[in-house]
Amino acid sequence: MIPPHPIEELIHPRSVAVVGASTNTGSWGYAYVDHLVEYGFGGDIYPVNPRYSEVAGYPCYPSVKDIPGHVDYVISCVPAGGVLDMIGDCAAKGVRAIHLYTARFSETGRGDAAALEQEILARARQAGIRLIGPNCMGLYYPGHGISFGYRLPKESGPVGMLSQSGGGASSFALMAGKRGVRFSKVFSYGNALDLNECDYLDYLAGDPDTKVITIYAEGIRDGRRFVESLRRAAAVKPVIVIKGGRGESGTRAVASHTASLAGTAAAWVALIRQAGAIPAANFDEMADLAVSFCFLPPIMGPRVGIAGGGGGPSVLAADECEEAGLDVAPLPDEIRLELKARGSDIWDWISNPVDVSIIGGPGVSDLDMLRLMGASDDFDLLIGLVNDTTMLTLARREGIEFRLGYVSEGYRKVKQEVGKPFLAVLADDGSGSDLYGNWSGQAISQVRTDLIAAGIPFYPTIGRAAVAVRKVIDYYMRREQA
Amino acid sequence: MIPPHPIEELIHPRSVAVVGASTNTGSWGYAYVDHLVEYGFGGDIYPVNPRYSEVAGYPCYPSVKDIPGHVDYVISCVPAGGVLDMIGDCAAKGVRAIHLYTARFSETGRGDAAALEQEILARARQAGIRLIGPNCMGLYYPGHGISFGYRLPKESGPVGMLSQSGGGASSFALMAGKRGVRFSKVFSYGNALDLNECDYLDYLAGDPDTKVITIYAEGIRDGRRFVESLRRAAAVKPVIVIKGGRGESGTRAVASHTASLAGTAAAWVALIRQAGAIPAANFDEMADLAVSFCFLPPIMGPRVGIAGGGGGPSVLAADECEEAGLDVAPLPDEIRLELKARGSDIWDWISNPVDVSIIGGPGVSDLDMLRLMGASDDFDLLIGLVNDTTMLTLARREGIEFRLGYVSEGYRKVKQEVGKPFLAVLADDGSGSDLYGNWSGQAISQVRTDLIAAGIPFYPTIGRAAVAVRKVIDYYMRREQA
Repeated sequence: MIPPHPIEELIHPRSVAVVGASTNTGSWGYAYVDHLVEYGFGGDIYPVNPRYSEVAGYPCYPSVKDIPGHVDYVISCVPAGGVLDMIGDCAAKGVRAIHLYTARFSETGRGDAAALEQEILARARQAGIRLIGPNCMGLYYPGHGISFGYRLPKESGPVGMLSQSGGGASSFALMAGKRGVRFSKVFSYGNALDLNECDYLDYLAGDPDTKVITIYAEGIRDGRRFVESLRRAAAVKPVIVIKGGRGESGTRAVASHTASLAGTAAAWVALIRQAGAIPAANFDEMADLAVSFCFLPPIMGPRVGIAGGGGGPSVLAADECEEAGLDVAPLPDEIRLELKARGSDIWDWISNPVDVSIIGGPGVSDLDMLRLMGASDDFDLLIGLVNDTTMLTLARREGIEFRLGYVSEGYRKVKQEVGKPFLAVLADDGSGSDLYGNWSGQAISQVRTDLIAAGIPFYPTIGRAAVAVRKVIDYYMRREQA
Repeated sequence: MIPPHPIEELIHPRSVAVVGASTNTGSWGYAYVDHLVEYGFGGDIYPVNPRYSEVAGYPCYPSVKDIPGHVDYVISCVPAGGVLDMIGDCAAKGVRAIHLYTARFSETGRGDAAALEQEILARARQAGIRLIGPNCMGLYYPGHGISFGYRLPKESGPVGMLSQSGGGASSFALMAGKRGVRFSKVFSYGNALDLNECDYLDYLAGDPDTKVITIYAEGIRDGRRFVESLRRAAAVKPVIVIKGGRGESGTRAVASHTASLAGTAAAWVALIRQAGAIPAANFDEMADLAVSFCFLPPIMGPRVGIAGGGGGPSVLAADECEEAGLDVAPLPDEIRLELKARGSDIWDWISNPVDVSIIGGPGVSDLDMLRLMGASDDFDLLIGLVNDTTMLTLARREGIEFRLGYVSEGYRKVKQEVGKPFLAVLADDGSGSDLYGNWSGQAISQVRTDLIAAGIPFYPTIGRAAVAVRKVIDYYMRREQA
């Protein structure tokens, strides 16, 4: 039997102390305590700060040494100058892991700060304590009641993440969360002083709760080991990678962010691809990919059937799908004959994408066309365009709300009846100001909630959907060949 | 003196008849009447339909001939088979222009429908009546009280449009409208049977109310004339062009949409560029470009200063700006020394993009950094990143709302104090479902409304802002060289 990865034990503490805890509800010293409460951490919670007797309803202790019970895991919000002393206290207490939210170390580019960082590493190793960070948000593990944000999903799910950027990890978890993605474990690891990107990646590769791995990495300490870890992980599950710091200015920004070396853009993309992983340009694209892997069954070919837009948007949908490498297949004769048999007067000139502004009459709605293409062997994938003739149209509120209800209910049924991968394109109603009131934003939120419940992923534009889907198809086709 | 373009008279009717008017409030026969009322058309309004005595509060006439007063402009919602008779009535009545919302002509690919279309053209020419369409939404001219949608802005503005797609024109006007763009005249022209893309383009080129022209074209009837018109228009104002039907399937879709020939993708992009116009891939990009031209002063160089994101998002902002052809210039010594003089402890390692997660203390906020870069000769353009550390962060509602208020007020002041082009990146809070309630969407709508009022354009992602801005810079630099 393979022994569990060392990280497995570290992230299942029975008790957590937050050192540098605060009563200021706008501070992270408060938030890290409060998150444990809000996300339902089941063990003991110990705020530590000599200035307070209570934080967030919990007794607050002057130091880690003063905590009455056992302490497994420490979150450090103290300034950089206080970390060495704190580690001493943690060593005496038998702490196993410290997450250093604390920053201002090597990322400043200053010699004394980098030296202090190394001293901290040495002291922790001496005491047998593993470090997450410094200069990071740490762990978001909803299944164990640990979080670094109030707005991240409380339910668990299949996506794991390791991110050198805390802001990036938070943004992504929130953004993907709103599209129905749920998370197993997210590691924001900052300067990667002790545990590094390879450790987290190895852990997630072997973690049975994690079905999809997402990575935001700026610099890599040990390129050879990382490539090996990436290859091993990508052999067993989809791995999506953003390389931050691809150009000249980005590399400069990386230096002041997490003090790592960055490498060139093209080299990283090639390296990611060769390892069997999937490169993404930014967090938006990573969300599109994560949504695709979470919601869609394997897509085994590029032939797409599209329905729901008006004339011009249908033309552009075809262009953007084709430009992304999808095959917008023509309608087969069998479908035309079926339409003719149903009495449609457009059976001879309707095409794929299906322009809904020209269809009408019984048996030939956009939903019917999705069903017909779903039943045909000529299509590998279906896309429903919700935006154009629905919310971006010209109708009054009641007309738009009616159409959105029709889509919610209709897509759910199509999805049940058709065994094929099926996704929806549904934008944010044009990045709106409150020019027209906010009712349409609320109506769209409701449809999205319904789509998520029905297991149908949504994407803000056809172009983004097409780019993501093509990468997903490549992943599955490559796996089939392997 | 140059005589006015013939279109000028056609679109200033004193009276409008809607033939095929309806009491069904979900129909276009009703909506076209109602739009005249809602958008404040100042002349006479005549619904026409033998089945009704009143539509939308106006007396309804059996035929155009029965209208008591003079009729300048007719909107036709009758079926294709009724158009020839209607033109006869219009001829007797002295009508000058007919907008044929009516469809099912040559776009069906059927010989009889195409023949009918040609007969309609001949009959109209005989009667001296000009035609808009068929198979189109017609005219949106808020300054004269004519619209083809309930949700389009009622105020006038500098952007004109000609669009072969009615759905595209509507989507674009709504989407760009929500970002503060206002319109002079929008022509949805469909099959372009009589007046065609060149006529509308020539008109908008000479129209003093139109400062920016946007075009969605699928097929072009007379390529040589179109290129000439495009060149003349682009010599006097920015012209943004989407070519729909760029690939194999798009070309097929064009055929069934507006019965035009499409041409190849690369050829069209080259042609658009050579004429001095700006190619756009889709309506999202066209909106980014229209917003840029409407809100930003000329940008005379690619050196961009960025502030407002956290560490990882700052790194990716640098990457995406550089990949789009912008120059993310390093912070000059003068700014570092000023920061040092203010007592900042990060003067030596802060960089551009300014990572707000590391700044703090008086005199060194993200707004201060925007002011400093705005005052420096090293930057041509400023970008404020609102998303990351604001709405996508980890704070509770009150914290996010506080930060959004700070941005609204702060950006307004920065814009007043700094003479440079300044834009904001503010996404839709992650394409949200209603997982977290809709309050954040409402808060963002408010900020966007404030930004529009302050004359600051916003873009949903840094990548989209960078791509649009680079094209705008190219436009101004090329004009300067000419």
